[in-house]
Amino acid sequence: MKKSFGAKTLIYPTPVWLIGTYDKSGKPNVATIAWGGICSSKPPCASVSLREATYTHGNIMERKAFTINVPSSAQVEIADYCGIVSGRNVDKFQAAKITAVKSDKVDAPYINEFPMIMECKLVNHVETGIHTHFIGEIIDVQVDEIMLGEDGSPDFLKINPILYGPEIQSYFDVGKYLGKAFSIGKKINK
Amino acid sequence: MKKSFGAKTLIYPTPVWLIGTYDKSGKPNVATIAWGGICSSKPPCASVSLREATYTHGNIMERKAFTINVPSSAQVEIADYCGIVSGRNVDKFQAAKITAVKSDKVDAPYINEFPMIMECKLVNHVETGIHTHFIGEIIDVQVDEIMLGEDGSPDFLKINPILYGPEIQSYFDVGKYLGKAFSIGKKINK
Repeated sequence: MKKSFGAKTLIYPTPVWLIGTYDKSGKPNVATIAWGGICSSKPPCASVSLREATYTHGNIMERKAFTINVPSSAQVEIADYCGIVSGRNVDKFQAAKITAVKSDKVDAPYINEFPMIMECKLVNHVETGIHTHFIGEIIDVQVDEIMLGEDGSPDFLKINPILYGPEIQSYFDVGKYLGKAFSIGKKINK
Repeated sequence: MKKSFGAKTLIYPTPVWLIGTYDKSGKPNVATIAWGGICSSKPPCASVSLREATYTHGNIMERKAFTINVPSSAQVEIADYCGIVSGRNVDKFQAAKITAVKSDKVDAPYINEFPMIMECKLVNHVETGIHTHFIGEIIDVQVDEIMLGEDGSPDFLKINPILYGPEIQSYFDVGKYLGKAFSIGKKINK
């Protein structure tokens, strides 16, 4: 039996990503979001949603760029903090003891202490309810060398990104490897 | 030191969701995606990206509705299978031994055996590179009663949704509870 919960943003999992931007004067900011994802493979694009009232919304409109910063589960307090306070009132980098580094390829800062960074250039934005849905073309991805596996790829279990449960407002980390995509399902055809 | 990986859809984590649709003749189909997320809180909206060549793309355009079906990690082979084959050639429900149930509120089927279902009505679509980014208004969420926690909310650890690592093409499950959102970050201000 299924229970109906009505019209809610209730689906598991969503990511926990911090959006890095500069304001008009060049001051860096980061804001935590769970409304985002990949939205195209070619050119590679990612989307993130922000309310117009946020500081980051204005910064993306102004600078046409943002970074997506993936925290490791050990950084969950920093991730949560950067979703509670506004960059209008606080220097989140100073308060959370994290470092803003200017991206090489886009006009936005990234968080040096975070293991995985994506640099995006704004290509479109779509008004969707109370949020603006920003679509950014992915220009580069950077990953800490200590987070790479033996094959040279970013190791999911080392990075151990944070998962978010909407409505229940809870964070979780990653468990175990389940298998290879486009492969383990082939058993069903046999 | 960070290593640059270039312009890639390389970010952790993405979800593993199955998109349920009817075709013109009323035949149900499901397709597995990892390009999707929540994109607005009010009205609640979710977005999913599909290439125009897919069967599901045509179905959403035709029926203006889709469901998002969240598999549990034990269903990872079914999830992977439904991303490998096309509904044009195969009845995935029959092959994967899953059941299509007509949604109460939208013109799309859901997977009865999956623990968490979201019913969406198409409200917008945006061409983004090789993908069409479909934006659906969330009309209802349904969750198996055995997947609810003591407080009546969907239990993240019981549902145990699947995570996907793009580029490394690997699946993972959920680990442990890390803490409460909008709460554990408050320590930083003190």
